[in-house]
Amino acid sequence: MEFPSKLIEDAVNEVAKLPGIGKKTALRLVLHLVKENENKTTQLTQALDRMRQNITFCKTCHNISDQDECSICHSHRREKSLLCVVEESKDVMAIENTSQFIGVYHVLGGIISPMNGVGPSDLKIDSLINRVVQSQGTIKEIILALSPTMEGDTTAFYINRRLKDYPVRITTIARGVSVGGDLEYTDEITLGRSITGRTLFS
Amino acid sequence: MEFPSKLIEDAVNEVAKLPGIGKKTALRLVLHLVKENENKTTQLTQALDRMRQNITFCKTCHNISDQDECSICHSHRREKSLLCVVEESKDVMAIENTSQFIGVYHVLGGIISPMNGVGPSDLKIDSLINRVVQSQGTIKEIILALSPTMEGDTTAFYINRRLKDYPVRITTIARGVSVGGDLEYTDEITLGRSITGRTLFS
Repeated sequence: MEFPSKLIEDAVNEVAKLPGIGKKTALRLVLHLVKENENKTTQLTQALDRMRQNITFCKTCHNISDQDECSICHSHRREKSLLCVVEESKDVMAIENTSQFIGVYHVLGGIISPMNGVGPSDLKIDSLINRVVQSQGTIKEIILALSPTMEGDTTAFYINRRLKDYPVRITTIARGVSVGGDLEYTDEITLGRSITGRTLFS
Repeated sequence: MEFPSKLIEDAVNEVAKLPGIGKKTALRLVLHLVKENENKTTQLTQALDRMRQNITFCKTCHNISDQDECSICHSHRREKSLLCVVEESKDVMAIENTSQFIGVYHVLGGIISPMNGVGPSDLKIDSLINRVVQSQGTIKEIILALSPTMEGDTTAFYINRRLKDYPVRITTIARGVSVGGDLEYTDEITLGRSITGRTLFS
């Protein structure tokens, strides 16, 4: 692509580093900013800088937070005996949107992936074990809500092994046919899991 | 959507103002920046700020440029008698990518659109007329490369009327069946135009 200006080229290259944004989309966004008033760009860049510089993580669950402790960990209405382990903050947001979970979270910050050079020590797994130890039996159940991939299974297996000597129940979220999903169009692995993981019809 | 942090919420709202970026995509991009090193965000915001603050427009053709005069207007290898009128800088880039045009450009900065409150005085039309007048007959042909919409036709009609007393040939780019396009799948208006605008088979 031939750019009319080095400034545009640099900006496009930076925007195109974002995931899912190609050069053409980046150019469209940059030219949009050129067309808009200068303060629109300032608003955008200031919001991003302010966010990135001041963002903190909850000292307990490692979720993104404005304070030292996130609003979920801080709330007295959440069930502290129930702990849901997820990979990222966005998983917390997804589960919170269901309004079905009353417990608290633990954000690992990723998943064990030897291919990407991510080992257990790169994640907040030690912190999870510490939480269980320090709770002195208060944490009764840990729900593993990890990706249904090889990496997710490895991470779940590893956490399960690390916690095997502690009096805590370890569960995983149900895998099965999605609500409204047709049996015919469900892949075999999911359909198989939905049968082995069947629940009582009540 | 429930955000874990006001900082994230503000950043997402700003990013979601960009065209074609919804709240979900904005959140994905913002969380990507949180995961990356802080200097990645700085690189991005600095490139955008630098671009927006220093971007200038060519004093002749109003295309985006780093200097007072853009590289196309400045080049001695471009045919100054042939002038292509486009709406935006991105149209210049699109035509430049074809390597089929040897003339120079004139960027209107938009299109006449009463619906959006854009009149002739909001565009670089007076500047176009001035260029023609000041060229004292050097500019021989003006190619209108505008959108094939009601607004594009209005703008073309308006420019044509403004220039009717000057010794300049006004043409528009050919509309027709796209190269590789199937007659069967071409809309009737395009197909009709391809017949009225037929060219000699040589």
